[in-house]
Amino acid sequence: MPGQGRRSLRLGEIASRLGGRVAGDPKVLIRQVGSLERAGPGQIAFLGNSRFRAKLAATRAAAIVLAPADARLTALPRIVCDNPYAYFARVSQLFNPVTTQPPGVHPSACVSPGTRLGARVSIGAGCVIGRDVSLGDDSCLYPGVVVYPACSIGARVVVHSGAVIGADGFGIAQEAGRWIKIPQIGRVVIGDDVEIGANTTIDRGTIDDTVIEDGVKLDNQIQIGHNVRVGAHTAMAGCVAVAGSADIGRHCTIGAAALILGHLRIVDAVHISAGTVISRSLLKPGTYTGVFPSDDNASWARNTAWVRHLAELAGRVRALERRRSSRKVKKHG
Amino acid sequence: MPGQGRRSLRLGEIASRLGGRVAGDPKVLIRQVGSLERAGPGQIAFLGNSRFRAKLAATRAAAIVLAPADARLTALPRIVCDNPYAYFARVSQLFNPVTTQPPGVHPSACVSPGTRLGARVSIGAGCVIGRDVSLGDDSCLYPGVVVYPACSIGARVVVHSGAVIGADGFGIAQEAGRWIKIPQIGRVVIGDDVEIGANTTIDRGTIDDTVIEDGVKLDNQIQIGHNVRVGAHTAMAGCVAVAGSADIGRHCTIGAAALILGHLRIVDAVHISAGTVISRSLLKPGTYTGVFPSDDNASWARNTAWVRHLAELAGRVRALERRRSSRKVKKHG
Amino acid sequence: MPGQGRRSLRLGEIASRLGGRVAGDPKVLIRQVGSLERAGPGQIAFLGNSRFRAKLAATRAAAIVLAPADARLTALPRIVCDNPYAYFARVSQLFNPVTTQPPGVHPSACVSPGTRLGARVSIGAGCVIGRDVSLGDDSCLYPGVVVYPACSIGARVVVHSGAVIGADGFGIAQEAGRWIKIPQIGRVVIGDDVEIGANTTIDRGTIDDTVIEDGVKLDNQIQIGHNVRVGAHTAMAGCVAVAGSADIGRHCTIGAAALILGHLRIVDAVHISAGTVISRSLLKPGTYTGVFPSDDNASWARNTAWVRHLAELAGRVRALERRRSSRKVKKHG
Repeated sequence: MPGQGRRSLRLGEIASRLGGRVAGDPKVLIRQVGSLERAGPGQIAFLGNSRFRAKLAATRAAAIVLAPADARLTALPRIVCDNPYAYFARVSQLFNPVTTQPPGVHPSACVSPGTRLGARVSIGAGCVIGRDVSLGDDSCLYPGVVVYPACSIGARVVVHSGAVIGADGFGIAQEAGRWIKIPQIGRVVIGDDVEIGANTTIDRGTIDDTVIEDGVKLDNQIQIGHNVRVGAHTAMAGCVAVAGSADIGRHCTIGAAALILGHLRIVDAVHISAGTVISRSLLKPGTYTGVFPSDDNASWARNTAWVRHLAELAGRVRALERRRSSRKVKKHG
Repeated sequence: MPGQGRRSLRLGEIASRLGGRVAGDPKVLIRQVGSLERAGPGQIAFLGNSRFRAKLAATRAAAIVLAPADARLTALPRIVCDNPYAYFARVSQLFNPVTTQPPGVHPSACVSPGTRLGARVSIGAGCVIGRDVSLGDDSCLYPGVVVYPACSIGARVVVHSGAVIGADGFGIAQEAGRWIKIPQIGRVVIGDDVEIGANTTIDRGTIDDTVIEDGVKLDNQIQIGHNVRVGAHTAMAGCVAVAGSADIGRHCTIGAAALILGHLRIVDAVHISAGTVISRSLLKPGTYTGVFPSDDNASWARNTAWVRHLAELAGRVRALERRRSSRKVKKHG
Repeated sequence: MPGQGRRSLRLGEIASRLGGRVAGDPKVLIRQVGSLERAGPGQIAFLGNSRFRAKLAATRAAAIVLAPADARLTALPRIVCDNPYAYFARVSQLFNPVTTQPPGVHPSACVSPGTRLGARVSIGAGCVIGRDVSLGDDSCLYPGVVVYPACSIGARVVVHSGAVIGADGFGIAQEAGRWIKIPQIGRVVIGDDVEIGANTTIDRGTIDDTVIEDGVKLDNQIQIGHNVRVGAHTAMAGCVAVAGSADIGRHCTIGAAALILGHLRIVDAVHISAGTVISRSLLKPGTYTGVFPSDDNASWARNTAWVRHLAELAGRVRALERRRSSRKVKKHG
């Protein structure tokens, strides 16, 4: 997986495939990508942000991908392009497979009757695929994925190990101090070009389906509750929790360990910061945050004690304001 | 799993099995449950809250379950009952199996010697059951569950895929800058009628046992530390973390991603909001919350900057109050 | 695993192996460890904190491990030592195996070609080990662990069930509203004497490696992003999330469910409280906290409403201060 790439390309060949402008020697031979810090001969690195110009000055990479504004920061052979990070992703894809598991069903996987497998599907060791699941062309389940019955997974979907798709949603009703289970008879329906991280769980719907639209990217250990909809091309970082029936728009980004409560709506192009709890609908695009600031423990304790007295503190400020007003009245009265 | 139910019943037959009062045609034939939004012919939906009366007006369901106060909101055939949500759960159970995995041990499961399996137990593909585990009647482990040695699981317990029961608690002691492992020789003991979500982990006790009492419902990706006790009929939503030796009462509800610190006590009938950190014992029933409010990023930044200066701000208010008092004293002195 | 230990030792024999001073009868026979509350004949318990002296008074343990300051709190046979908790860990190790899975590769495990297994390695049922993985002497993978290709695991490492080591990091670049995957070609490199909890995930690096140094202890359900470094002998409690490229020092402790954002640096000997979000580098050793206090729901709602008005409140205080100053100026002007 790491080490030498499978092929080598001249810098000019890369630019003629992927675009961008070459500066310096176009014949330098590239065999793999590398980081600015550790790249060596035959490796191409990228500068995503001019903050890292010190690393650029010290790099031993053979070539660099960078933005027009940074094009003169180095004399190394380079490709100048508008979006160096995306360009670098495409360069890396030239040298490295996006998934590393070959097509086919591993003999230790359990694939139930009625499963519809697309072409070139890859199902890793120990996967368990329930009845009547469908899996689109070129999808790849890494070892140890479980897909419950009747779920539908699109084309070019990658699911990492330990993910569980289609377990029962958490539907329980209280009656006389006991919990009654509500059978979860919906499905999970996953679009095309979705990636799902290790140990992420996506619950089936109670009656209607849980829906993950095309191009969604979910990191590890995310929990998606029943009847959630995640709009197309939305990305979530690790450990996000989305409670049942939340409706999340397209092109959103949700930071690590954010929590989105149930039965609320988030429109397209909303960005939620890591660690934020969203407890009401967000009906305007934008960035939302709700992180309590950390501090050295003593400062935290001193300041935080006042959180439990904020209303009282506000009342004291109001009282001071009133006294002043009444004094004014007295003075001028 | 989804689609047509296995049987059909007339509305009057449902009411004669489950109670409630029929209004409208008792002969309408019901074959499955549905949501207000998507139910069609032969499906029964429910109205849990009069907020959703617009959906009720538009529904194409064949019949509705609703509360006495809402009984006149529709002319559709209906069952009127005190707790429509619980009633609906029971209706759905009539048409759908609560677990969908048939009894028996899947040939790919590894069941160690000394395991005691009750009647009609279902053990899914790839499950691994350690030595001397006991598993009560009618329990169901979905594919890929791991139960470490010596744990005890009651009757009618459902465990979803990827759950790990009985891994070592996190018991380490520091000595000269190194961590020494404390062998974890307790067990996990799980009562009857418990449900455990996908990828949830429950650690074995250090010496004494970790205990999950009867009727507890745990959603996905919950972490229960060693020597925790979860009291009967308590329910926890996804991603809750409970640190070691916490003692949680009966009939509690714990919201998603709440964190309960170790060695504390929570009495019966405590309700903890999603996203809340509980760092001291809760000795009175009630609802507890500790969520930092989210906001648009700019407003958040502006307000949150003051959290680190709350004690100073409070000091300034106090100073204003003192000056006023001293002025008074001067005036009247 | 629980129950009677495999051997018995006299109290004096324990002290001659592990140090400490015996008080009372050194011939008392010990067969297992126990808790103060539940220990019985043949069991040794420990007193870690004089807060628990009431439990000590009531214990039926055969012997006690305690600190010099507490040595006179009981007349039971006892071992007096400086660090009773660590001592107790060592006593427990005398009676109990630290890992309970015997060496060898379970027949249901999938071990890819090119894997280098050290001596006495134990690989549990259903584990999947990718190509070119190396695994040091005496390491133990419990059932259902997945190790992706090319990762390196040291000696005496214990990995609990459901852990996933080496899944792709969450590397995606945005281009024209779509996400492009950045191939993740780095590895995970784990040192010696590391323990990894159930369902914990450690992602492989994008280009360079993700590194877990010697002696690190990770509890359950932790997420370690790509290119993170966790310094030697650092311990993390359950559900911690560490975003990509964070660099965490040695001898740190990270409390449960803390969140450490990406691309920041934490020096050695930093202690982060449970539930804390760290969003900037911590360059001084010490304890850091950022937990929003919980309260009964009504008090929380009343006080928290002011968080969204803190800047305004601070402005009102400033205005009061200014008026006072201007009044002073007027008076004295």
